[in-house]
Amino acid sequence: VQKTTATAFLVEKGNFRHFMAKEMHEQPEVVAHTLAHYLDMANETVQLPDLPFDFASLERVSIAACGTAYYAGLIAKYWFERYARLSVEIDVASEFRYREAPLPANGLAIVISQSGETADTLASLRYAGQEKQHLLAVVNVPTSTIAREAHAVLPTLAGPEIGVASTKAFTCQLATLAALAVAAGRARGVISAEEERRLVHALVEVPRLMNRALDLGPEIEHLARALAKTKDVLYLGRGTSFPLAMEGALKLKEISYIHAEGYAAGELKHGPIALIDENMPVVVIAPHDAVFEKTMSNMQEVAARGGRIILITDETGAKHTALETEATLVLPDMNPFITPLVYAIPIQLLAYHTAVVMGTDVDQPRNLAKSVTVE
Amino acid sequence: VQKTTATAFLVEKGNFRHFMAKEMHEQPEVVAHTLAHYLDMANETVQLPDLPFDFASLERVSIAACGTAYYAGLIAKYWFERYARLSVEIDVASEFRYREAPLPANGLAIVISQSGETADTLASLRYAGQEKQHLLAVVNVPTSTIAREAHAVLPTLAGPEIGVASTKAFTCQLATLAALAVAAGRARGVISAEEERRLVHALVEVPRLMNRALDLGPEIEHLARALAKTKDVLYLGRGTSFPLAMEGALKLKEISYIHAEGYAAGELKHGPIALIDENMPVVVIAPHDAVFEKTMSNMQEVAARGGRIILITDETGAKHTALETEATLVLPDMNPFITPLVYAIPIQLLAYHTAVVMGTDVDQPRNLAKSVTVE
Repeated sequence: VQKTTATAFLVEKGNFRHFMAKEMHEQPEVVAHTLAHYLDMANETVQLPDLPFDFASLERVSIAACGTAYYAGLIAKYWFERYARLSVEIDVASEFRYREAPLPANGLAIVISQSGETADTLASLRYAGQEKQHLLAVVNVPTSTIAREAHAVLPTLAGPEIGVASTKAFTCQLATLAALAVAAGRARGVISAEEERRLVHALVEVPRLMNRALDLGPEIEHLARALAKTKDVLYLGRGTSFPLAMEGALKLKEISYIHAEGYAAGELKHGPIALIDENMPVVVIAPHDAVFEKTMSNMQEVAARGGRIILITDETGAKHTALETEATLVLPDMNPFITPLVYAIPIQLLAYHTAVVMGTDVDQPRNLAKSVTVE
Repeated sequence: VQKTTATAFLVEKGNFRHFMAKEMHEQPEVVAHTLAHYLDMANETVQLPDLPFDFASLERVSIAACGTAYYAGLIAKYWFERYARLSVEIDVASEFRYREAPLPANGLAIVISQSGETADTLASLRYAGQEKQHLLAVVNVPTSTIAREAHAVLPTLAGPEIGVASTKAFTCQLATLAALAVAAGRARGVISAEEERRLVHALVEVPRLMNRALDLGPEIEHLARALAKTKDVLYLGRGTSFPLAMEGALKLKEISYIHAEGYAAGELKHGPIALIDENMPVVVIAPHDAVFEKTMSNMQEVAARGGRIILITDETGAKHTALETEATLVLPDMNPFITPLVYAIPIQLLAYHTAVVMGTDVDQPRNLAKSVTVE
């Protein structure tokens, strides 16, 4: 924590009102920087540093992390399974370390932490080490304890993050893990050279698409005025949009103190739909991907109960739904692989502008510390 | 759904005001009935029907379920890992079926469903079948589609459940899964005959302990008057008390429409603590187990921010905390293995009495159906 505080004096807000705003707007640049570190942009291939294990022979991956980094890991789980046919077990670090989970003989443990000092994540790394796992750290501070104790480190290159609510560290974690998943898919013979090029090409597009997402700022600022009056918000998504729904809810919780909750859209009917009435805004994250129609059918149930819908989708998705929404935020069409990186931006903007309207201390929200270095 | 409705006419509420109350109070009896089906009570051993797979050679277990049944599965994951050193992957069925998770060559898929007709759970079962998994169903309706399509069925013997919010079906699912975990531990040579006896003995104690938990009714009824005035509640727990925290939150959501959310206690500092102020009741589920002290330290943070604490613990736990709470519900000391079964009762009573005070339709809460037979 000392380190972060010291850095804070050296970093300036520039033209931005808050560090969080500055850090959100830095994302196209720092994500491009992170991607450039792990991709050969010219040849559209992945180019990772040498890793002390072979993806082809890995038995399984375990991921442990806390808070926002945990949601980055959950998105990565979908990627590893889909693009590398590699089983991934993921848990919040505070459970993983005490659960004494059986780990396989040739397994890889990945821990994710902005600071590299998160107490439970460090303890999870040490537990996995005792269980003879390969240890890979995805951290933003390469001199951190977690980086030192891991067998290999993939730095996220987001630069110092001052806002307590993580934004650019999250998308840089996603960029790193996306590159890693493609590398794993190639090493395991699941994706072809052609498919690798397609996925890397999609990743290269991310910074440009993030800029388009940032253009939604004024529209979201307008929306935030209504959101600031609500007490509860539900976020829904399927597939990789499900962890993003949880991250969106966490962001709003952290800086606006509104009780937001993220849910897998398919679980709506198994409980949370009881909360829905005409006062309840529901943020639906639904790019036009393989599960789009399923999410629309959940959205219809929300609409039928008078729920106020904020839909975040793409041009094709917007064309394919006739449902009335309170607002529809439209992003360009893109490869479903990269949607979590780009859709993170409207999610962050929504939380940010709502908190600004409410007048909370955006960069230093109550009760929260930037790094949780004690249990 | 037709079937359930038909049954409703045959089942009476007796002296109870709601089916949910009747079903909560039936738990000692139906759980004893379920346990008697899977245990040799006299010899204190597990006695399962023949299963078409061998636990000793299983590679991995995958569990898919929805809502309350999903939380039962999550508790079972802790049991399988701890008592059988068997890796368990668990997911909500609506994600599992579309995620196309890689499944191992000699894997077991367990699906859990009260009705045996849950659409996403059935689809998950079929997906696992295509992937050549052994298919085991834990269902309350042995004539259901899921029971018919599985390779083996473990019925939960809870009897017809009419209240939309599941209570006795949940604890009977836990009883069945607990017996299964002990059987797996024996088959895999992880637990000795002596340890089996100890665990089975603990299970045999459950109905008696459930009656003690039901005795908390009047105290909880009193508590509910304050809870009924709140808009938001947080539930916290670690280990098997973490899924139970989520189940507690779900129960309150379903029937009182209060926005309740369950969290792993260790994640508190990574976001939800921002919500805590003097208006926010926090239900802490903390038997005096291996993680008790850790949970107490989280509870202290809640107290420091003025949060109103409802602590559910045991006699030893109550003795070992000096923290001031709004209420402390004290259960007898018991083997940590069985706490989820017994602690489920105060969690259910809390939701029930709160809903009764609020005057909601407890047995038929708004927007919810008993069985979700469409996606």
